[in-house]
Amino acid sequence: MNELDQYKIAEEPFYQPQEDEIEMYTAAYMNRMPVMLKGPTGCGKSRFVEYMAYKLDKPLITVACNEDMSASDLVGRFLLDKEGTIWQDGPLAMAARYGGICYLDEVVEARQDTTVVIHPLTDYRRTLPLDKKGELIEAHPDFQLVISYNPGYQNLMKDLKQSTKQRFCGFNFHYPDEKTEAHIIAKESGVNKETAIKLVQVAQRARNLVGHGLDEGISTRLCVYAGQLIADKVNQKSACKIAMVNPITDDLDIVDTLNAAIDTFFE
Amino acid sequence: MNELDQYKIAEEPFYQPQEDEIEMYTAAYMNRMPVMLKGPTGCGKSRFVEYMAYKLDKPLITVACNEDMSASDLVGRFLLDKEGTIWQDGPLAMAARYGGICYLDEVVEARQDTTVVIHPLTDYRRTLPLDKKGELIEAHPDFQLVISYNPGYQNLMKDLKQSTKQRFCGFNFHYPDEKTEAHIIAKESGVNKETAIKLVQVAQRARNLVGHGLDEGISTRLCVYAGQLIADKVNQKSACKIAMVNPITDDLDIVDTLNAAIDTFFE
Amino acid sequence: MNELDQYKIAEEPFYQPQEDEIEMYTAAYMNRMPVMLKGPTGCGKSRFVEYMAYKLDKPLITVACNEDMSASDLVGRFLLDKEGTIWQDGPLAMAARYGGICYLDEVVEARQDTTVVIHPLTDYRRTLPLDKKGELIEAHPDFQLVISYNPGYQNLMKDLKQSTKQRFCGFNFHYPDEKTEAHIIAKESGVNKETAIKLVQVAQRARNLVGHGLDEGISTRLCVYAGQLIADKVNQKSACKIAMVNPITDDLDIVDTLNAAIDTFFE
Amino acid sequence: MNELDQYKIAEEPFYQPQEDEIEMYTAAYMNRMPVMLKGPTGCGKSRFVEYMAYKLDKPLITVACNEDMSASDLVGRFLLDKEGTIWQDGPLAMAARYGGICYLDEVVEARQDTTVVIHPLTDYRRTLPLDKKGELIEAHPDFQLVISYNPGYQNLMKDLKQSTKQRFCGFNFHYPDEKTEAHIIAKESGVNKETAIKLVQVAQRARNLVGHGLDEGISTRLCVYAGQLIADKVNQKSACKIAMVNPITDDLDIVDTLNAAIDTFFE
Amino acid sequence: MNELDQYKIAEEPFYQPQEDEIEMYTAAYMNRMPVMLKGPTGCGKSRFVEYMAYKLDKPLITVACNEDMSASDLVGRFLLDKEGTIWQDGPLAMAARYGGICYLDEVVEARQDTTVVIHPLTDYRRTLPLDKKGELIEAHPDFQLVISYNPGYQNLMKDLKQSTKQRFCGFNFHYPDEKTEAHIIAKESGVNKETAIKLVQVAQRARNLVGHGLDEGISTRLCVYAGQLIADKVNQKSACKIAMVNPITDDLDIVDTLNAAIDTFFE
Amino acid sequence: MNELDQYKIAEEPFYQPQEDEIEMYTAAYMNRMPVMLKGPTGCGKSRFVEYMAYKLDKPLITVACNEDMSASDLVGRFLLDKEGTIWQDGPLAMAARYGGICYLDEVVEARQDTTVVIHPLTDYRRTLPLDKKGELIEAHPDFQLVISYNPGYQNLMKDLKQSTKQRFCGFNFHYPDEKTEAHIIAKESGVNKETAIKLVQVAQRARNLVGHGLDEGISTRLCVYAGQLIADKVNQKSACKIAMVNPITDDLDIVDTLNAAIDTFFE
Repeated sequence: MNELDQYKIAEEPFYQPQEDEIEMYTAAYMNRMPVMLKGPTGCGKSRFVEYMAYKLDKPLITVACNEDMSASDLVGRFLLDKEGTIWQDGPLAMAARYGGICYLDEVVEARQDTTVVIHPLTDYRRTLPLDKKGELIEAHPDFQLVISYNPGYQNLMKDLKQSTKQRFCGFNFHYPDEKTEAHIIAKESGVNKETAIKLVQVAQRARNLVGHGLDEGISTRLCVYAGQLIADKVNQKSACKIAMVNPITDDLDIVDTLNAAIDTFFE
Repeated sequence: MNELDQYKIAEEPFYQPQEDEIEMYTAAYMNRMPVMLKGPTGCGKSRFVEYMAYKLDKPLITVACNEDMSASDLVGRFLLDKEGTIWQDGPLAMAARYGGICYLDEVVEARQDTTVVIHPLTDYRRTLPLDKKGELIEAHPDFQLVISYNPGYQNLMKDLKQSTKQRFCGFNFHYPDEKTEAHIIAKESGVNKETAIKLVQVAQRARNLVGHGLDEGISTRLCVYAGQLIADKVNQKSACKIAMVNPITDDLDIVDTLNAAIDTFFE
Repeated sequence: MNELDQYKIAEEPFYQPQEDEIEMYTAAYMNRMPVMLKGPTGCGKSRFVEYMAYKLDKPLITVACNEDMSASDLVGRFLLDKEGTIWQDGPLAMAARYGGICYLDEVVEARQDTTVVIHPLTDYRRTLPLDKKGELIEAHPDFQLVISYNPGYQNLMKDLKQSTKQRFCGFNFHYPDEKTEAHIIAKESGVNKETAIKLVQVAQRARNLVGHGLDEGISTRLCVYAGQLIADKVNQKSACKIAMVNPITDDLDIVDTLNAAIDTFFE
Repeated sequence: MNELDQYKIAEEPFYQPQEDEIEMYTAAYMNRMPVMLKGPTGCGKSRFVEYMAYKLDKPLITVACNEDMSASDLVGRFLLDKEGTIWQDGPLAMAARYGGICYLDEVVEARQDTTVVIHPLTDYRRTLPLDKKGELIEAHPDFQLVISYNPGYQNLMKDLKQSTKQRFCGFNFHYPDEKTEAHIIAKESGVNKETAIKLVQVAQRARNLVGHGLDEGISTRLCVYAGQLIADKVNQKSACKIAMVNPITDDLDIVDTLNAAIDTFFE
Repeated sequence: MNELDQYKIAEEPFYQPQEDEIEMYTAAYMNRMPVMLKGPTGCGKSRFVEYMAYKLDKPLITVACNEDMSASDLVGRFLLDKEGTIWQDGPLAMAARYGGICYLDEVVEARQDTTVVIHPLTDYRRTLPLDKKGELIEAHPDFQLVISYNPGYQNLMKDLKQSTKQRFCGFNFHYPDEKTEAHIIAKESGVNKETAIKLVQVAQRARNLVGHGLDEGISTRLCVYAGQLIADKVNQKSACKIAMVNPITDDLDIVDTLNAAIDTFFE
Repeated sequence: MNELDQYKIAEEPFYQPQEDEIEMYTAAYMNRMPVMLKGPTGCGKSRFVEYMAYKLDKPLITVACNEDMSASDLVGRFLLDKEGTIWQDGPLAMAARYGGICYLDEVVEARQDTTVVIHPLTDYRRTLPLDKKGELIEAHPDFQLVISYNPGYQNLMKDLKQSTKQRFCGFNFHYPDEKTEAHIIAKESGVNKETAIKLVQVAQRARNLVGHGLDEGISTRLCVYAGQLIADKVNQKSACKIAMVNPITDDLDIVDTLNAAIDTFFE
């Protein structure tokens, strides 16, 4: 299993549980059930799977999906060598062959039809046919497939097919509650609790605007950015605007509303 | 026929017959008639063809069709070797040459026009021209072509051409009846009959919503997932929600309706 | 002419003439006139050209056209060899060079513009320029080009250009008359005359529905399928439904109408 | 100039002049002016350029343009050899380098933007840059560019750009007058004058229907086809229908009208 | 600088100045300012840049832009050699490296986004990153970029981005005034002044029809064509029609109007 | 770190601070926070990042994004060598591996989905998976990612995804105030203050027309161009028109308005 050693998570990632997701994921992994993580940007889906990979002590191979990703990018391809062509496993084949968790991040970005290559790996067959090589991989007993999925994005053109969805159990993720989020921000940025709570309160103002001019609210990550800048002693309002307003919108009305919120909490 | 040995089904797959499909398929195979399996996601089409391949003791080569699949992916291509180019049969050519059942799963996903390469294999000629190699394969006497097809998906852009359809006899598949389905769920997940029946009843609620906000109902496979989690002693309602609600919909009203159904049957 | 020997038709195909098409085709071939075969799916176009190739004792190279077919797939391409690149004739170049009938099946599936490569072969020049190789093939005296074409399919996006059409003489094909068709079905499936006539009558019901919910009627081929199953002693109604109803429609009303027809003729 | 020897026209093509086009084309060639031949399908554009090439004793390189034709197909490309890559001139580069007439048949089929590679060859520069090879070909003094163009086809998507059109002088072609056309048909098919005139009269009926259900009229070529079949002693009406009706339309009303015309003139 | 020697203009091109464009261009070149030449087809943009390159004694590399042109076609690519891959500069890299004027003709034809590769060459950085090679070319002190642009063509799909436009100073070009144009025509075609003026007058009739059925007027180049034919003693009206009417329109009303103008001036 | 030495900025670029952006950027860099620079064309975003790279003494790798840029263009690819294939880092991989600032200029031009490759580099993981090579790069401690973004361009088809935006802190850029801009123009073009102020005043007229027929105003860069020409003693009004009017619009009304402004300030 040397091939996957570099994909082991060396240090325990910080993860703040929301509900019973750790217990449920463990049960799903015990059955090697394919898992779908659903939720908005920056609410901790990627970190959760890293945390679980650490806890279960399994390698984690992450693939950032995109529209240009072909089936070959997942499964593998022939490369030209001085001896002729040699086969190179793609990330999915590697995880299936040597036993690891393969995490397809933002899977809806991949072309709907590329995703069908995961089908034989996600039913009782647990096989991956390498058509081009003429080989049929039987998945390693440790192999599991995990995908992430942002429900706010799906549209007519980009959504998973039902025949794909029905191969997964699904975990819903949300922004953490105020106290938890402030705890995360303080821990990760180095600001004190009080400042962390103010940052959460600004973020919540933005989240209330979702659907009223904002596509998505301010994520925990952006609050941490603001906290990191503030911890470096720069102007607090500037830090908030740079980290929490400028990245998410160009709408002047929204900008004014968010700046007013910042002015309320910071000086 | 060594080339196809790895495609023999080693153990008898569990298959619960619905009607006379085993007898009819056997007759179709005796005439080497091309077969189309029609029905919704997760109702057992793929397993049926595996079962028949086992019973008939023939290798089964499955191809998960997708829009990026070119004719070369089915038929074969030249690879570069240290000696120059060598030909490598694709899955369809391999099955035709050495005698096996070639199963094109979700064939409508393939570009309508890629599918024309199967035409000369599916009429009295039973040949496959390898245009690029300048070879004409006469199909092995054991060769048969099987395709699956989900009628709920076909649309103006993606449907089989009549000239393709008319080369197949067609088998219709449905969800199993309640008792059969509960039997399958209990056997595959390890829950008792009583729990299995409850899971079927939740699934049926969802199936009644098809066309009223749901594209497709809860498949037997998802019921088995829920059963597996329950057999691991996790919270039963959580198990149902994770396995049977979260994967199939993001619509909050549908979610509420299904959760209410779960609350009715589980505690 | 060894290159084309494998394309000779070894046994006389069964062909039931409809009108004077054998005489007319023979005259067209004597003038090496390009020929277009027009008619619905499964009415015998492909078999007719095989029959004529057998009668005229010429090799027949069939190409199943599809949208991904490039001009290179017809004309040829350079392959990489250990000595460098070598040229390989495509099916059209092979037929033109060594003298055979080249049959482009379902030519409208090919991109309109790919078809222009046949132009210099279909007027008084009878040449095929291999631009990539810098060679100009003078067609062999035996060479002839034949295309098939289903008028029911042509639409705004996919139709032959007039400048292509006007290079062919055209033969119209139809379903055979009832007696002829029953004769074909009985001969090919092994059922008796009486059963064969019943199958034709069911087929005719479906053909009357064309344009009223059906895109195309039941072909002779599907009747033969049903006959083959019945000859294997399976349930006659099941055989008819599997072979003649399931493949051609998903419309429940049409299914009911056709099932009623089957119930009328079979028991 | 050996490279182009195979492109010399060996025998004088039969060409029946319509107006002063031979004199005008000769003047255009003397100035090496780029020439555009305009007119409907089958009215003799390709044959005219062959005739002029023969008369001027220049090689003629014909390229059937299509949408998949890239600039490299015209200009040339690197091929892989055992010594590495070697350059191979495309037809346009060959004609420009060694001195010949390059004829781009149906140039509107080529992508509008591919055609810009001809620009530096068609103004006072008379050069062809081979960007990929880093070479600038000065056109040979004998080089001339000719394109053909069917005005009835151009549409919003496919028309030549003005900046391309304005590099050519233009020759208009039409169907020949009745007497000339009958002369051509008799000479090329072997039928007598009387039959040839009847064929022209049928053709003219069809040409009057252009715009009223027919996209294009019956070309002289199709009349010759009918004549050839009739000269082989087959049924005259069948010959006319196969050669002059079936290829050009699927519209039943048009078919009836044309059949009536045939019945009027032939028995 | 041997690499660019073949791109030096050997003879002074004939160029008739319109306003102060020679002085202004010289100043722009002294500052190595990127230059945009704007104006209708055939009004002399390409010749102006050739003239300036001659006057400034700099090599001129012209690229006819088209939609299929990739960034690699401008910048360069790796080619396969017997020693492995070797890098070959594209025309833009060659001009930047060795010092020349790179002229991108009809730049709007190139994909909007291909044009961004010129950005770092057209601001104070004057660099060209060869991403694939990992090299950063500092432009040679003599390097300048020139583009041409026909404002009549730009549409929603094809226009330069403001971030591209704002990197250039712009020179407007028009058809020359009557006297200048007649002088050009007489000099280039060999006709006398009187005939040249008549040709200009016909051209002006057409230019007045722009926007009323004509997309673009008759260019000076077409007047020269007509003059060349007339100088060869062919029929004057035929010469005018072939050179000035047939190429630019298929509209019968426009044809009549222009023919009437020709009949007015020529006999 | 030799690989990146050529990407060090040798001389301090001239940069005129607008607000506290230098301090804030320094804090962001200290936290290796990904940075987004927002603002209109030509307002100094690219120069700011060069200035900061100089001040922080880090190599700067700039990538001009375009729609044809594939993930491989950022991440790297295999090249064919005489020894077989060798891997070559793309600019993003090079910056991540050896430690530099990677600046993706006009990132919205890249396909939305190509940009997902930057995700694992822009959260706490700071890794770049080279899927094709099977390697996972841990970003060098000096690595930082910077992107530029023009809010006026984003549209339905081309905008950054929220899941991308929320990985950056954002800096807003504007045109400098009048005095600052005149200072920049005078310094860069060599004109005196008085002339520089006139040029700014013309530019401001154009900026007021944005949204009323102009997509974008006259950038500082174009004012510098005009200044450079004026410093070369050419006609001042011509210089202004060539540098400040012709490049930005073809609308005759806008041209008149801007020319009037030029006539007001220059003589």
